[in-house]
Amino acid sequence: MGLNGIRTALKVDLDKHAREQPGLHNRWHPEIPAYGQIANNEVVKIECLDWTGGQIKNNDSADDVKHVDLTEIHYLSGPFDIESAEPGDVLLVEIQDVQPFQEQPWGFTGVFDRHNGGGFLDELYPNAFVSIISPHSTLLTVDDRAKAIWDFEGIFCSSRHIPHVRFAGLIHPGILGCAPSAEVLAEWNKREGELIAANTVADRIVAQPPQPKNAHAGSAAQDIKERIAKEGARTIPGRPEHGGNCDIKNLSRGSKIYLPVHVPGAKFSVGDLHFSQGDGEISFCGAIEMAGVITLKFTVIKNSMEKLSMKSPIFHAGPVEPQFGPGRYLTFEGFSVDEHGKQHYLDVTVAYRQTCLRVIEYLRRYGYSDYQIYLLLSCAPVQGHIAGIVDIPNACTTLAVPMDIFDFDIRPEADVVKRDMGACAFTSE
Amino acid sequence: MGLNGIRTALKVDLDKHAREQPGLHNRWHPEIPAYGQIANNEVVKIECLDWTGGQIKNNDSADDVKHVDLTEIHYLSGPFDIESAEPGDVLLVEIQDVQPFQEQPWGFTGVFDRHNGGGFLDELYPNAFVSIISPHSTLLTVDDRAKAIWDFEGIFCSSRHIPHVRFAGLIHPGILGCAPSAEVLAEWNKREGELIAANTVADRIVAQPPQPKNAHAGSAAQDIKERIAKEGARTIPGRPEHGGNCDIKNLSRGSKIYLPVHVPGAKFSVGDLHFSQGDGEISFCGAIEMAGVITLKFTVIKNSMEKLSMKSPIFHAGPVEPQFGPGRYLTFEGFSVDEHGKQHYLDVTVAYRQTCLRVIEYLRRYGYSDYQIYLLLSCAPVQGHIAGIVDIPNACTTLAVPMDIFDFDIRPEADVVKRDMGACAFTSE
Amino acid sequence: MGLNGIRTALKVDLDKHAREQPGLHNRWHPEIPAYGQIANNEVVKIECLDWTGGQIKNNDSADDVKHVDLTEIHYLSGPFDIESAEPGDVLLVEIQDVQPFQEQPWGFTGVFDRHNGGGFLDELYPNAFVSIISPHSTLLTVDDRAKAIWDFEGIFCSSRHIPHVRFAGLIHPGILGCAPSAEVLAEWNKREGELIAANTVADRIVAQPPQPKNAHAGSAAQDIKERIAKEGARTIPGRPEHGGNCDIKNLSRGSKIYLPVHVPGAKFSVGDLHFSQGDGEISFCGAIEMAGVITLKFTVIKNSMEKLSMKSPIFHAGPVEPQFGPGRYLTFEGFSVDEHGKQHYLDVTVAYRQTCLRVIEYLRRYGYSDYQIYLLLSCAPVQGHIAGIVDIPNACTTLAVPMDIFDFDIRPEADVVKRDMGACAFTSE
Amino acid sequence: MGLNGIRTALKVDLDKHAREQPGLHNRWHPEIPAYGQIANNEVVKIECLDWTGGQIKNNDSADDVKHVDLTEIHYLSGPFDIESAEPGDVLLVEIQDVQPFQEQPWGFTGVFDRHNGGGFLDELYPNAFVSIISPHSTLLTVDDRAKAIWDFEGIFCSSRHIPHVRFAGLIHPGILGCAPSAEVLAEWNKREGELIAANTVADRIVAQPPQPKNAHAGSAAQDIKERIAKEGARTIPGRPEHGGNCDIKNLSRGSKIYLPVHVPGAKFSVGDLHFSQGDGEISFCGAIEMAGVITLKFTVIKNSMEKLSMKSPIFHAGPVEPQFGPGRYLTFEGFSVDEHGKQHYLDVTVAYRQTCLRVIEYLRRYGYSDYQIYLLLSCAPVQGHIAGIVDIPNACTTLAVPMDIFDFDIRPEADVVKRDMGACAFTSE
Repeated sequence: MGLNGIRTALKVDLDKHAREQPGLHNRWHPEIPAYGQIANNEVVKIECLDWTGGQIKNNDSADDVKHVDLTEIHYLSGPFDIESAEPGDVLLVEIQDVQPFQEQPWGFTGVFDRHNGGGFLDELYPNAFVSIISPHSTLLTVDDRAKAIWDFEGIFCSSRHIPHVRFAGLIHPGILGCAPSAEVLAEWNKREGELIAANTVADRIVAQPPQPKNAHAGSAAQDIKERIAKEGARTIPGRPEHGGNCDIKNLSRGSKIYLPVHVPGAKFSVGDLHFSQGDGEISFCGAIEMAGVITLKFTVIKNSMEKLSMKSPIFHAGPVEPQFGPGRYLTFEGFSVDEHGKQHYLDVTVAYRQTCLRVIEYLRRYGYSDYQIYLLLSCAPVQGHIAGIVDIPNACTTLAVPMDIFDFDIRPEADVVKRDMGACAFTSE
Repeated sequence: MGLNGIRTALKVDLDKHAREQPGLHNRWHPEIPAYGQIANNEVVKIECLDWTGGQIKNNDSADDVKHVDLTEIHYLSGPFDIESAEPGDVLLVEIQDVQPFQEQPWGFTGVFDRHNGGGFLDELYPNAFVSIISPHSTLLTVDDRAKAIWDFEGIFCSSRHIPHVRFAGLIHPGILGCAPSAEVLAEWNKREGELIAANTVADRIVAQPPQPKNAHAGSAAQDIKERIAKEGARTIPGRPEHGGNCDIKNLSRGSKIYLPVHVPGAKFSVGDLHFSQGDGEISFCGAIEMAGVITLKFTVIKNSMEKLSMKSPIFHAGPVEPQFGPGRYLTFEGFSVDEHGKQHYLDVTVAYRQTCLRVIEYLRRYGYSDYQIYLLLSCAPVQGHIAGIVDIPNACTTLAVPMDIFDFDIRPEADVVKRDMGACAFTSE
Repeated sequence: MGLNGIRTALKVDLDKHAREQPGLHNRWHPEIPAYGQIANNEVVKIECLDWTGGQIKNNDSADDVKHVDLTEIHYLSGPFDIESAEPGDVLLVEIQDVQPFQEQPWGFTGVFDRHNGGGFLDELYPNAFVSIISPHSTLLTVDDRAKAIWDFEGIFCSSRHIPHVRFAGLIHPGILGCAPSAEVLAEWNKREGELIAANTVADRIVAQPPQPKNAHAGSAAQDIKERIAKEGARTIPGRPEHGGNCDIKNLSRGSKIYLPVHVPGAKFSVGDLHFSQGDGEISFCGAIEMAGVITLKFTVIKNSMEKLSMKSPIFHAGPVEPQFGPGRYLTFEGFSVDEHGKQHYLDVTVAYRQTCLRVIEYLRRYGYSDYQIYLLLSCAPVQGHIAGIVDIPNACTTLAVPMDIFDFDIRPEADVVKRDMGACAFTSE
Repeated sequence: MGLNGIRTALKVDLDKHAREQPGLHNRWHPEIPAYGQIANNEVVKIECLDWTGGQIKNNDSADDVKHVDLTEIHYLSGPFDIESAEPGDVLLVEIQDVQPFQEQPWGFTGVFDRHNGGGFLDELYPNAFVSIISPHSTLLTVDDRAKAIWDFEGIFCSSRHIPHVRFAGLIHPGILGCAPSAEVLAEWNKREGELIAANTVADRIVAQPPQPKNAHAGSAAQDIKERIAKEGARTIPGRPEHGGNCDIKNLSRGSKIYLPVHVPGAKFSVGDLHFSQGDGEISFCGAIEMAGVITLKFTVIKNSMEKLSMKSPIFHAGPVEPQFGPGRYLTFEGFSVDEHGKQHYLDVTVAYRQTCLRVIEYLRRYGYSDYQIYLLLSCAPVQGHIAGIVDIPNACTTLAVPMDIFDFDIRPEADVVKRDMGACAFTSE
């Protein structure tokens, strides 16, 4: 490193559309051309747009959330060729820092329409929820899109849309990974296609197949571009072979992640920066989404996929995660009996949904609307654990809420005072 | 408390069969008579058998695991009447300490037959696993029951069956809760019965209905005993209405748990003590199971179920959990694509199973057998998190292994030396 | 270890005087005969009296504190011969557990007379303090001895003499170490004798020379006994060559300490068990003193003093220290300007005394007497750090108080409510 | 806060001399004019020079350390008028972030000449040390100035002058505080003058009196400037009445500090930013000194000095301190017996010096020079605790070294390999 600091491998322009800028793309495909090279052992800064490419604004309406175009997302920075990386190698990436842009110190969290992204509780919000979970509640409107804007205050954030909470960010990239090989890509498209084909639930989108509309293949030539648009894997799911959109909150500053390499040069991409996120990122656009800059060091470990028996990424977390102390969490239990009283068989997904509902019921007592809590559980550093997975028929999960993010006492033994909690942003229509 | 220490509300005799001792039972039912009363705000010690009532021995054969009779278990201590508790109250239980018996400083972890308890990986071990996951492996026998004995060394434990690991216990009760009311019990039996009735997977036990064989109803009179045997809920699953067998590793020393009260006097029971457990307790008999003594304080909070909007237990963890530092875990990622390459839709259970397999593949390189790792992941304080649950179609989970439980360096960057790791205990037949 | 648990290398009888029991002594001397042998790599339990040998009682008077005879203390368990240990070796001692006796679940903290033990603030309490620090205070009597009794509740403790606080113990031995050689002992007596000889401050005891009165040399023959009584080093100070009464709160369960060996067999002794202690143990009898049992593993590392360049003990702390989270401490600053406004030169002792006074002034506002706070700062797990030691002329120290030990909010931003805090025990005379 | 980020209340120019820039000063005096106003509850960024104002360069010679002019330092940013602050108020300052300048990602640590700043071990290095502590060592030259340059890698730092170590910064301001009143200033000058007058140790500078040479009084008019130069307190020591150069490593990101206000407008100043520091900052220029930018929020709490009984600052630490886990420190003990074998009476300063020497002796075995270790202990996040302060005549202190800052295993049980550790920067003359 020179005395004058670290090289910026990609700069982005927040005032231009993503498609008009080099070094960005929104599909996974081995043939998206590399945007420059990074040396082995080099440290670089890489700037990133927010995942929507700037579609969501710092205002008090969720209209932008309603109209967000998911065929466009996620805009990723890259792909970068990493010197000497070959298929079978492992790419060690150290996340030395992640920062929002100083001139844009804010982020957003959203509840999306269930037909446009959805979310972990999307069958409950708004309609089912009103009648089943909370029959007498008047808190909920029929609106099904919501938004909270978070202002960054150094390491902390707070929101005018969810008052009386404030916490230190557990800042991380939602997406990082290397490009799939042609074989890996074919496998993805095959198995996700089979899932779509097998789906029998009407009104349920189970996966997003390749979608030419709004596909952005970086600097690819026209004919390749068309192929990429047709074949390129969507960026929404993380996938075992390369990680991708894994949305792991603990991949924060100081983490070291080991990534499988599938193509020559690795073709590494990164994006979808989060100022904070809770385990599960439950509202889909559930992290505090932001544009910003990430500082990464790249080291190629030759021929290590086999040596490490590695099929999916492995990582160490960094040492500076916010620490609350084990006794400063209030933890809720949930089991795989759904909100209709139906027993499911060792279904962790059902159990975690119930656990989330238990927290909503608890926090609602302080005056928060269900949407505010839904947004908060999505983005605050809550811990979602798989507690028991073998005691047939009930899976048990826990969700631990750090009490110190509230400026009032949420312990069960403290008095409950209902406050005017304002409202999150809703659609105007 | 007097100067001479805390009252022991129940003593057990490790040399007698559970059925021959007062104060024990192995079904949930409102009519099991209380074994004595505990005053509001009283602190007492309660002794507990291990969950099998002593069926598993400190030796080097898994024959006892093979022949364990699951109709007998779990033997719980209680139920205890808590002074002044009424339905609708919340019972606050502080876990002031948990200790093994000094004269029996050991515990066990087992892999059970898939037709007798099963486990999280029971479709993989041994047969399917050999062919699918590890086609060339010669490590595995066709044996499907295994055992490890753990010796307690103060706060630490180690096993002659899984060498080169040692860790501090995260000691806790696997089961605690209040008795169900008749209505709650009926609901349990109905919904679990419906699950059993709806099951179409041959060779898969999805739930355990009431089972008169070996039912132990405490001191109930004969006619009531028969009713309890017929109706009493099995203790295997935790259940949302009261907690029960929640198997939450963090319910350790110093925790405070808020439990719903469904019957007059609460009828509190506790048992299934664990010296340690990993998230998921994946091998079913996956914790380090032990007999011992638990010190509890009971406080009744009147009319609080509604005040707290409480449907399931809530707790604070205690301050003395073993702390490794965030950078001292090696964390594995897993996604909801199963070992056959099939894509599942946001299925956390599938994702967590894959995550477990990733760890097995990684640790196998050091010379451990798959059974040793399966046992270790079940009982060591591994952290299983739900990372992402909204990025269709892949759920992503993580499993974080504390590296400092090994006496060698398991970081990916360290050299791999294959060691003679001996073997866990297997069946002789 | 056998199936029946760990051998107890020494049992004590709480109802008998220390001098009437084998395996105890209260001076450091190479010729005190060993009380039995411990094998290399053996784990044993060792029972210990409290440091006064039972002179302090569980009652509400400090008369016993007033009359305590310091020529008697500390009663240590041992010395034990460790198989194969020779001078120049290092003895690795793992503290596997420390527990109070179940039949005596309480401990005590005392403020001693400044002519009988003294304490860190003994020039301020009571007389000087009244006039200088707090001229208008009426809280203080002229009494200068005080006591608090602490009841143990599993891992927690609380005191009827200092209400509204409760905390988990950071349980540890105040004293452990190997016997000095004749040369080391001679060096101790010489250098401490020189300090005594050089002292010019009237009314200030600067060190305790050998004192035949009440010396207890274990099972030594009469002639040796007399020599030991005359030469034996007092146990009050820790000393660099062997550790001894180091009073390090973090030497808690799970710690591993490396101790220099000076005599054949090491002649290891241990005692002065503490349920909890704050950094500095400022009131002299400042820990929560107790009788109890310690579980230790002994391993001899041959010829390692030189290999490790070891002049004083080194240790690793254990993993189960109570954890509060860095943001849950309220931290006070103090500098080396004394209570008379006099500037001292980089004097950490003066700075830490000032820091303690700052905490007393702060906590006094809640209704606590100065003695209650003095006792509390002595025994609660407060963190005393050397912050700056080079900025002439001021040393700066900090004292961090864990806020969660109080059941009310002590943050500066919270309202102050003065409570009836009762009183600690005082003398009746 | 606007959408475009936080106001920068002071910008500095790294290419200009400090005296040629507005908003800087290097003495404490009530009449230094305020550099602008900050609103109550406002968040601002304040840029800071390094403490020497740029005298130390990123190179491999310590000549600059030798020639540093201490009459110039510390250059502080401010003073700032805080809206509505009056004497007797408390100024709550939240440290929302601290960052180095992106274009200057490096800092320095130095050992100064004992006649020009000195340090905690300055009587030992180089001469006395060679003969007393390490008679046969050939590691040491007679050089007594040394330097290490640290490169910042996101949250981490490493040094070409001290290889094989790397750690996350515990970034903080060494100095922050409000201006003294005329009365407080007079008290400082009086008591420090008395200390200087009373000093009888030849060749020992015990305090730095006001020094007109190089005094920088900000924008004061000429006549006031002269008075300030004559009366203004030096910035070297922290002082109890306002904090100042307290050098507390834990005052890191997220901390909230309560500062006494002595003059109208508070006249707050800040500077001396540190990327990291160990407890004691033992080599004087012992932190990793840097220029950078600090983000602060200011809140005035009216009339609170008396309400809080506050004589010195109080603070909460932030939640993002690097966490190693309690078992990941190697801890050394030291006692108040000095390197000549002389016994001191409860002298923590002597004890901590001995503790530092124990670490030097231990780490020297790996090939580090004493100067490298001295520099490392100064700036790495080592924990220096006051363990025991009442066991006459020995004070006991501990110094805990986080083992994970080394890339090799420093546990006593690991093999020692002597490495080529290069050298820190020395003077060329």
